[in-house]
Amino acid sequence: MSTVYDARIERVLGYMAQEGLSQILVTSTASVYYLTGVWVDPMERMLAFYLDDSGRRVLFGNELFGLQPAPGRELFVHTDSDDPLRDVVRIVRPGKIGIDKAWPSRFLISLLGQRPDCTPALGSAPVDNARMRKDAEEIEALRRASRINDSVAAAAIEAVREGAVESQLAALVEEKFREAGAGRGHGQLVCFGANGADPHHEPNQSVVREGDSVVLDIFIPIPYYWCDMTRTVFFRSASDEARRVYETVRAANLAAEAVIRPGVPMREFDRAAREVIEKAGYGPQFNHRLGHGIGLECHEPPDNSSVSEVIAEPGMVFSVEPGIYLPGKLGVRIEDLVLVTETGCEVLNRYPKELQIVG
Amino acid sequence: MSTVYDARIERVLGYMAQEGLSQILVTSTASVYYLTGVWVDPMERMLAFYLDDSGRRVLFGNELFGLQPAPGRELFVHTDSDDPLRDVVRIVRPGKIGIDKAWPSRFLISLLGQRPDCTPALGSAPVDNARMRKDAEEIEALRRASRINDSVAAAAIEAVREGAVESQLAALVEEKFREAGAGRGHGQLVCFGANGADPHHEPNQSVVREGDSVVLDIFIPIPYYWCDMTRTVFFRSASDEARRVYETVRAANLAAEAVIRPGVPMREFDRAAREVIEKAGYGPQFNHRLGHGIGLECHEPPDNSSVSEVIAEPGMVFSVEPGIYLPGKLGVRIEDLVLVTETGCEVLNRYPKELQIVG
Repeated sequence: MSTVYDARIERVLGYMAQEGLSQILVTSTASVYYLTGVWVDPMERMLAFYLDDSGRRVLFGNELFGLQPAPGRELFVHTDSDDPLRDVVRIVRPGKIGIDKAWPSRFLISLLGQRPDCTPALGSAPVDNARMRKDAEEIEALRRASRINDSVAAAAIEAVREGAVESQLAALVEEKFREAGAGRGHGQLVCFGANGADPHHEPNQSVVREGDSVVLDIFIPIPYYWCDMTRTVFFRSASDEARRVYETVRAANLAAEAVIRPGVPMREFDRAAREVIEKAGYGPQFNHRLGHGIGLECHEPPDNSSVSEVIAEPGMVFSVEPGIYLPGKLGVRIEDLVLVTETGCEVLNRYPKELQIVG
Repeated sequence: MSTVYDARIERVLGYMAQEGLSQILVTSTASVYYLTGVWVDPMERMLAFYLDDSGRRVLFGNELFGLQPAPGRELFVHTDSDDPLRDVVRIVRPGKIGIDKAWPSRFLISLLGQRPDCTPALGSAPVDNARMRKDAEEIEALRRASRINDSVAAAAIEAVREGAVESQLAALVEEKFREAGAGRGHGQLVCFGANGADPHHEPNQSVVREGDSVVLDIFIPIPYYWCDMTRTVFFRSASDEARRVYETVRAANLAAEAVIRPGVPMREFDRAAREVIEKAGYGPQFNHRLGHGIGLECHEPPDNSSVSEVIAEPGMVFSVEPGIYLPGKLGVRIEDLVLVTETGCEVLNRYPKELQIVG
C-alpha cells in the first residue's frame, strides 16, 4: 500500500529530474520527516536521507536517534565513536550530488575529502519544491495550528493590563501553547512601546506604560506544523501618530492579502503592501520583507519578498507581515498566515485586526 | 587599549598558523561573539566574521542584525534583497580558506560557485582551540551559571511530589532559570520511570509513580555561558536493582572525576567511568559518551568520549555524565560540569549526589 511518504517521494523524484539531480542527500530534520515520518533533531550528530533516481532510499543516523527499519528503506546506524560519514561515503554515487542547504559544512567538507569524485550542488530545491505545495494532511495541520494561535493571542491580549511585564507575557503565551499541545517554547516576541521598533527585540522586564504599542508575535510548532501570527494593540491610549501608523500597516496587510491568488508573482504581494506604506511616507521604516513561507519550519520556501521569483500556486502557505518601526517610539506589525487556494486565498488567522485599545 | 577580544584574536591567529590556515570565515553565533562581543542569532540569514593572517578583521551581516562599526574591524551589511555572499566573495583571498564547521552548506556551495579559486578546509579548529581553553572571564561566567543550576535543581527536586507531571516540572525549571537571569528555555529533560531509559525523552504528561527514577537534566545559557547538570532521584522508594544501578552510576561519575587533571588523555576519563559500569555488568546500557565540552555552546569541544584525542589542559570545561538505561524500567544519569585546573579539577556543580528518596 502506498503511503503519504511514497507520494511525496514520487513528487521529489520529479523535481530532481527537473533540476538535473540524480541523487540528493536530505539532511534537515523537517525534510527527513516530510519524506520518512521520522522526526529527529540530530543536534551536532549526523542525520541524512539519501534518495536517488533508481528509487534507492537510505536513512543514516546515530544510534541514539532510535531509528527503526521500514519497508523500502535501507538503514545505516553509526555510534558516537564512528566516523558519521562512514556509510554515506560508501553509498553515494560519483558525480553531481545534491546537498541540503542547511547541512553543516563540516559534513560536506568531510564528504568531499573522502569522495573527491563527488561534486556538490545545492540540492534542497526538489524537496523544497514539494514541501512548498502543501498536501491535504499538511493544510489541515496548518489550519489547526492557526486556530490554536488565535486563541492563545486572545488570552495574551486579555492579559495586557496594568503591571504587565514583557517576559511574563511571553511565558504566558508559551504556557498556553503547551496546554494546547505545542512542544517546547521557541521564544515568543512581546514588545512594549519603543522596544517594538526592533523587529527582533527579546522580551525583558519592561513594564507596559500608557500609550505603548504592544506587539505580540507568537509562533510555535504544534507537532509538527507551525503557526505564526502578529497582532499589535495599544495600552490605554494611542497617539494620533500611532493610529496613523497602525492604520497604514493594517491597510498594507489587507492590500497584500487582496492580491494573493494563483498565477501572480509573489513579489507583487510585497509590492502591494510596500506601496501602501510608501505612500503614507513610511517606506524606509518597513525594513524587512513581507513574509516567509511556513510549514514544518517557521521560515521555509516560498520566498515572500520583493525579489521573489516564485509564482503563487494553490497549496502554498506563507506569512504576510508588513510593519512600521519608529526607533525610540513604537513598532506596529500585523501578520497573518495565508494559504493560496484555487481561486484566491484563505487567511488562516481569524483574530481581528481592527485597532484595539486594551487595559 | 587592548580588549579581551584582541587577546582572543591573537590566540586564534596562533592556532591558524599551526593549522596552516591564512584566512578563516567564522560563522557560528557563539564564535562570532567570542571574537567580537556581538551576539547575533542569524536564523536563516548570513553572519560571518573574516580573519586573516595580515590581521584583517571583517564582519558581514544582514541589516536586521543592527551591527555597529567598531575600531579595527570592517563592517559590510547586506539586506534581505541582496546576495548575502556579495561582500564575502569580494574580500576572501584565493587559495585555502578555513570554513566554520556549522556554516550551512548553501553558503559554502555559493561561495565555491562564485570563487572557484578558493579551496574549502575545515576551519573551526583555531577558534575551537581558543574557546576550549577558557579565560578568566569565561570561567567566572561558567561558575556563576552552575551556581544557579544548583539552586534550580534544588527547587525542582523539592517539587517532585504526589501528582507531579513531567511537563510541569520542566516548565518550573525554565521559570526558575528565567527568574535567575537566563534567556529563553531550551527544552529541559524531565523523565519519570521507564521514560528515563531514553536519554533524549521529551517531557510529556506522565505523572510520577512510586518507585520511579526521576531524571532531571537541566541546562540553559545564562547569557551567554551554559550550565548543564543531571541529577536522578527516586520517588518514595527505590528497588534493589534501582539502588544498584544508581550506586554504579555514582561510582562511575566519581571515578571519572577522580582522574581528571592536566596532561591526561581525555579518553581515560570515559574509560574510568565505563570500567566501573562494565564491571557491574551494565556496559551495554551505558550507550553514549561520557560527556561534552561546554561554554558558549551546550555542546562544544573538547570531545569527551572514548575516542577523544584531546589531552586535558587547565581551562577546559566539560560534562561528566555516565548513565545506565534499562528499557521499560528506569534510567539513571548523574552529570556534573568540571573545570580542569592546574593540579586537578574543580567540579562546578555542588548539588549532592547521594541517593535520594523524595516525595
